[in-house]
Amino acid sequence: MLSFASDYMETCAPEILKRLGELGKEKLAGYGFDRISESARNKIREAAGAPEADVYFLIGGTQTNATVIDTMLRPYEGVIAARTGHVSVHEAGAIEYGGHKVLELPSEEGKIRASQIAEYVDGYWADGNHEHMVMPALVYISQPTEYGSLYTLKELVEISRTCHEHHLALYVDGARLAYGLMAEGNDVTMKDLARLADAFYIGGTKCGGLLGEAVVFPKKNTVPHFFTMVKQHGALLAKGWAAGIQFDTLFTDGLYERLGKNADEKADRIRKVLDEKGYVQDIRNRTNQIFLILTKEKAEELSHKVELGFWENKDEDHVVMRIATSWATTDEEVDELVSLL
Amino acid sequence: MLSFASDYMETCAPEILKRLGELGKEKLAGYGFDRISESARNKIREAAGAPEADVYFLIGGTQTNATVIDTMLRPYEGVIAARTGHVSVHEAGAIEYGGHKVLELPSEEGKIRASQIAEYVDGYWADGNHEHMVMPALVYISQPTEYGSLYTLKELVEISRTCHEHHLALYVDGARLAYGLMAEGNDVTMKDLARLADAFYIGGTKCGGLLGEAVVFPKKNTVPHFFTMVKQHGALLAKGWAAGIQFDTLFTDGLYERLGKNADEKADRIRKVLDEKGYVQDIRNRTNQIFLILTKEKAEELSHKVELGFWENKDEDHVVMRIATSWATTDEEVDELVSLL
Amino acid sequence: MLSFASDYMETCAPEILKRLGELGKEKLAGYGFDRISESARNKIREAAGAPEADVYFLIGGTQTNATVIDTMLRPYEGVIAARTGHVSVHEAGAIEYGGHKVLELPSEEGKIRASQIAEYVDGYWADGNHEHMVMPALVYISQPTEYGSLYTLKELVEISRTCHEHHLALYVDGARLAYGLMAEGNDVTMKDLARLADAFYIGGTKCGGLLGEAVVFPKKNTVPHFFTMVKQHGALLAKGWAAGIQFDTLFTDGLYERLGKNADEKADRIRKVLDEKGYVQDIRNRTNQIFLILTKEKAEELSHKVELGFWENKDEDHVVMRIATSWATTDEEVDELVSLL
Amino acid sequence: MLSFASDYMETCAPEILKRLGELGKEKLAGYGFDRISESARNKIREAAGAPEADVYFLIGGTQTNATVIDTMLRPYEGVIAARTGHVSVHEAGAIEYGGHKVLELPSEEGKIRASQIAEYVDGYWADGNHEHMVMPALVYISQPTEYGSLYTLKELVEISRTCHEHHLALYVDGARLAYGLMAEGNDVTMKDLARLADAFYIGGTKCGGLLGEAVVFPKKNTVPHFFTMVKQHGALLAKGWAAGIQFDTLFTDGLYERLGKNADEKADRIRKVLDEKGYVQDIRNRTNQIFLILTKEKAEELSHKVELGFWENKDEDHVVMRIATSWATTDEEVDELVSLL
Repeated sequence: MLSFASDYMETCAPEILKRLGELGKEKLAGYGFDRISESARNKIREAAGAPEADVYFLIGGTQTNATVIDTMLRPYEGVIAARTGHVSVHEAGAIEYGGHKVLELPSEEGKIRASQIAEYVDGYWADGNHEHMVMPALVYISQPTEYGSLYTLKELVEISRTCHEHHLALYVDGARLAYGLMAEGNDVTMKDLARLADAFYIGGTKCGGLLGEAVVFPKKNTVPHFFTMVKQHGALLAKGWAAGIQFDTLFTDGLYERLGKNADEKADRIRKVLDEKGYVQDIRNRTNQIFLILTKEKAEELSHKVELGFWENKDEDHVVMRIATSWATTDEEVDELVSLL
Repeated sequence: MLSFASDYMETCAPEILKRLGELGKEKLAGYGFDRISESARNKIREAAGAPEADVYFLIGGTQTNATVIDTMLRPYEGVIAARTGHVSVHEAGAIEYGGHKVLELPSEEGKIRASQIAEYVDGYWADGNHEHMVMPALVYISQPTEYGSLYTLKELVEISRTCHEHHLALYVDGARLAYGLMAEGNDVTMKDLARLADAFYIGGTKCGGLLGEAVVFPKKNTVPHFFTMVKQHGALLAKGWAAGIQFDTLFTDGLYERLGKNADEKADRIRKVLDEKGYVQDIRNRTNQIFLILTKEKAEELSHKVELGFWENKDEDHVVMRIATSWATTDEEVDELVSLL
Repeated sequence: MLSFASDYMETCAPEILKRLGELGKEKLAGYGFDRISESARNKIREAAGAPEADVYFLIGGTQTNATVIDTMLRPYEGVIAARTGHVSVHEAGAIEYGGHKVLELPSEEGKIRASQIAEYVDGYWADGNHEHMVMPALVYISQPTEYGSLYTLKELVEISRTCHEHHLALYVDGARLAYGLMAEGNDVTMKDLARLADAFYIGGTKCGGLLGEAVVFPKKNTVPHFFTMVKQHGALLAKGWAAGIQFDTLFTDGLYERLGKNADEKADRIRKVLDEKGYVQDIRNRTNQIFLILTKEKAEELSHKVELGFWENKDEDHVVMRIATSWATTDEEVDELVSLL
Repeated sequence: MLSFASDYMETCAPEILKRLGELGKEKLAGYGFDRISESARNKIREAAGAPEADVYFLIGGTQTNATVIDTMLRPYEGVIAARTGHVSVHEAGAIEYGGHKVLELPSEEGKIRASQIAEYVDGYWADGNHEHMVMPALVYISQPTEYGSLYTLKELVEISRTCHEHHLALYVDGARLAYGLMAEGNDVTMKDLARLADAFYIGGTKCGGLLGEAVVFPKKNTVPHFFTMVKQHGALLAKGWAAGIQFDTLFTDGLYERLGKNADEKADRIRKVLDEKGYVQDIRNRTNQIFLILTKEKAEELSHKVELGFWENKDEDHVVMRIATSWATTDEEVDELVSLL
């Protein structure tokens, strides 16, 4: 059956499998000390305009978030995040497992504002009991957010400035970064992220890789002994090049951008039809996720023809269903979906 | 200077010091295996109507909450609490240090409702992604709450029933329990707590003891190996009787109740005068804490004559100040305070 | 340059890449709920003779050990392991990060004996202070060990019986299991492991897979909510089939055994030549690792012609170097190595 | 019955109870911000010759060790300790609960040597895989040790120098410090500890206080935000002065020394008689603990007349029993014991 249920259902860009096949029985050093991982790191440094950046390859968003956040914080520190953020809701308590509180802020369309951060931190320091409280020390945002929305460059600049004025670090979760970078109207580049954030990760799993997320610390040695703590978190690959080769391929000849663009364009086509046909979208964005408000009857009817992702109950009579396109979505699939709507 | 800043400023009930003095050089077994601790445990079992109860003596509310909550939960489980609860805000991340997320609910006057708990837990199970989320497994409430408010017996019965219908345990923080038990209009007894909760603690530090909190598990062996985990949490006293003697004394001849009653009556006297003089109280209760809304000028003026506790900024022009009476508050102190208002 | 430095330097069995390539744009469910992972689980259940087994696919030995051990233990419990065990030495404190003490026993050639376990546990219970100590609750062994040695079936039966008589669980790390199963003289099958251990893992990364380790709990529901705790440990793959397909392929047509056999046979050839030429081996085994005692001069001389793994300094004048064969080692490589010796 | 079972069986020095009684209803600030705690801190700073020292009052050895060690280490770091050290064996895994490995060294009479530390750390850095291992960062020793033995000044100077040359911090557990300071032949003063260690604690619980351990960081701000982490560990007392007053009293008019001296002198008297009567002592020291090797029959016989502490089984026929004197031991008790031997 036709499926738009999520963006991590297809293997990976064929270019990656081809590269893997060409390795043959070449012997590669372990733990990321191989030539391919080094090449991938250099390509990412160049793409990020951060020649001194420390780059590491981990596997999976939760692992990456938990490892980066835990190692950037001291035990008494916490991470500010949107109440709807992935680290707040959908990581099974991985941040708390590392000993840190997620300091949740109300969010709009998955985004938090610089002013909220300032208010929270000022409130912390103004509180006579703040030494009995978790100190905010890091801000976690995702670009795009879990709702597919994007921070504008202006918003990001403000958040970055607010963070640094308040002695907080800024960390950006880019699980779906390709889909953000290439979205119509997006004005935030990877170089902006490297300039404005203290750490970010470039998603591979959901953006055309078989697996892998590339953690980037634009400033060298941001987290001393990060390697050992990656090991301690169970996140170090013996065959580090298995992740490195994903990014070495994705960052060759603009593949990452092309894959991102495919998903966004397909989603835009679908959005256009939805608008024409009078469907209501819950949170509008231009990335690869569409949140469709449907009556329960309509959702039930559609479910026999196409697999969508269940998002949430909107009210008694309506549900929100998610349509996710991906790097692999074809025109034929979109045609078929459109014909069903 | 006159002070109503908090309820843990005075040593302890003279009866306790007397008992300590009488020990002389008696040799007592360590780690709670002494005759005094055993006597205290039995008196608490009787007061709670729970002859099989496991009773342990710890020191300090944060330690007690962190130890009980951590040991009652499995790693994937979290604790539901009011967003304003002590475990949510004022324990420096002690619950998260133990690896657990505090699942915060909005609260009114420090209280959460059975219906909120049911809605949260039902929502968890209804969520298709709940296996990626922290499982709610324990409800934390405080009696009285941080705002001095009290759950009625009806509310507590409902919360208890909701918890157990949803396979959650119920834990009650009684840091100021004496002041709750003896408050005008309170209808919740210690026997009710033992009947309705899976664990609760009887506060000593703020209720007339030099230190110490008595953890009560009404059902035997609720937490196997709790003793060892108390040790692991750094919460085991070599001189266990130093805490045990507090409760052995407090639970003799109704001392705990008398001390509680003193604070509540003094607070009631103050509340009466405040009403007569037209002061506005923020959250009305009948326990030992009064939250007074004052203009910043009035607060500043008062601060030269009496020490109150700063609670929070109400708005641009007003602050909330806390008046706390205690087991030790005298009529003379109340007279003096009243004369200043 | 010729290299026998380790067994995780080559990509993976070509059969696996072929399967990956054949997936094309097939859409597969996430988090292990796909048809390929299910097929792999069934093949493993059959190979292990454990039709009810719970099987999960994780990535990397440290992650697997940390997740299994942490979730099998309660907070007051610890894991018994050889002092030279991987969890004791080479996991950067991952077990302790999860809050558990590794209770280290002296070992011989990487192995511990049933009698040592019994003695340790009996000593624990006999100690009047055992409630102040970490309770032994799980035994960790590796098959083969870090030194390539193997437990015999008799030894394993004794360890298993001792564990269960003493109320300990038994967990076997099979990072190099293929090389153990196929070693000359080995009498321990996968069915034996499933019968004797409470949990074990089948190594993929070092035995022909691109990545992946298959955790097997022979008894259903050994660890309730393991899935959520895998997520909490950052060990859950969105593209679960990326690991599942490794094992689905490895457990088809005896591939896992063939790959294991190749490494062992190549190592046996090398051992034979070493003996003939009078080299001294430190710890003799029949699996894929050879530990060669060399003078520093000889080691230096060899290092210009072949890459070996440095193991340790033996004494002032001698070092131990490791020769590791793998699933991919060819006769030509062995010939070349032999010619250098 | 006569008891020499341990040194934490009697209440506390009468001077402390007297001081507590004199407080009456004086109102004291919370969390250690009171005049008495400040006075105690100053007296300790003076006794330690460390005018800038940060001093905190915690309760109990395990709590103190876990809090200090956890807050002095980064997540990838571990603590070196004697295999027989309290943190290694008798704290129920409290160090591991904080996420850190105890790197155990063999010890002689409870002591480790500077050369062992150097060898361990050099070995760590020389190991090609050290980035996969727990980095040694802190050395834990106790003075006196769990066996009552003492480091000489020369040994301590060497350990301190070795630590600092190898970039390790040094932490000294002084649970029984009074008994070490006053022991015949001891040449290590509190000023030496402050000069040579990065942190140490002065035991109150076992040395005449009702409770309390004073943590001393000779250099200001050794652990930034220690206060908040004390809270996070559940180790912050609301009535901080309850611990502060112990040390304010113990450090007035040489009380701490007098109490220590009493125990040591009483132990020396007993040791003299034991020698005269031909008893065999297991580990000879001049502090307050005597380890007596007895046949099981003799131990059984004695157990009807005097309570001793069981230490361990020496061999099939012999046990080691501990005689502990304390600050409170009287000549009459010693006479009675001597008459039984």
